[in-house]
Amino acid sequence: METAKQRIAIDMDEVVADTLGKLLHCYNRDYEDTVTIEDLHGKKLRQVAKCGQELYRYFDDPTFFRDLAVMPDSQDVIRELQTRYEIFIASAAMEVPASFAAKYEWLKEHFPFIPDTHIVFCGDKSIINADYLIDDHTYQFARFRGQGILYTASHNLEETRYPRVNNWRDVADMFLK
Amino acid sequence: METAKQRIAIDMDEVVADTLGKLLHCYNRDYEDTVTIEDLHGKKLRQVAKCGQELYRYFDDPTFFRDLAVMPDSQDVIRELQTRYEIFIASAAMEVPASFAAKYEWLKEHFPFIPDTHIVFCGDKSIINADYLIDDHTYQFARFRGQGILYTASHNLEETRYPRVNNWRDVADMFLK
Repeated sequence: METAKQRIAIDMDEVVADTLGKLLHCYNRDYEDTVTIEDLHGKKLRQVAKCGQELYRYFDDPTFFRDLAVMPDSQDVIRELQTRYEIFIASAAMEVPASFAAKYEWLKEHFPFIPDTHIVFCGDKSIINADYLIDDHTYQFARFRGQGILYTASHNLEETRYPRVNNWRDVADMFLK
Repeated sequence: METAKQRIAIDMDEVVADTLGKLLHCYNRDYEDTVTIEDLHGKKLRQVAKCGQELYRYFDDPTFFRDLAVMPDSQDVIRELQTRYEIFIASAAMEVPASFAAKYEWLKEHFPFIPDTHIVFCGDKSIINADYLIDDHTYQFARFRGQGILYTASHNLEETRYPRVNNWRDVADMFLK
């Protein structure tokens, strides 16, 4: 049996997929507002948006997640990470069941080098058996058995409890140097 | 922090859902054959069926998994297990991406007491962080970190490497006595 590689589990939304970018675009267009990423320091868009929780109605559209932009450098860095680590994509897709198909197709388009066996749609990520979890949500780290790595998002800028990466170049520096 | 309960991850197909029962019904109807469960001792239906691998074309229908029968006693036993263990449903749904929605809806209908946070659609179940995995496929146990418990299915009758349960009453005896 070959020596097992360490495992890194990687979140989708706000980590490899620019979910907030599209949400912001749709919100500003439909509610005639001009909220920017900078306005969201330490906050979620729903806390700033005129529509509040209604914002999440966008997720009811099964295609919402199909055309999200890919986070810069994420493809190159993940491909490189695969040479030294076992990589899993772990999305809390159960929070938005309508998103399964679109998320899967998006991954197949932009990350074809990640096999189906290494894609996980879950809810509570404490079920993930990995050494590292790169995620923008600290609540996913609470019961996670490995080390949580916080991927910077506007809503988590005030968080100080976890090692932080601001972009995929930071991830490369952390894991590939 | 309360003492963590031990975790049991439970497969769907052939463990809580009678996938083979429906496959057998559809196959016999469409290919005018009379294969029974008894004919499958130690074998997969595709090894016996006139159509071979073509059998899996049934899975291309997104609704195939929506009306599977529930395995006898599974609902009662799992509800009881939840009082003493943390229960996750872990399906290798990535093998049949078209099945996501139907499998999710099926779980909501028949196991409404399992929260979304505790449903996992994955591929390689070594990503599951649990103490036990009840599954009919031994290949899922190879790298699983906990104890694999083999749920009897016609294709695994010759397997001797793992503790075995023949039905949900056996599961209750193993975990609740």
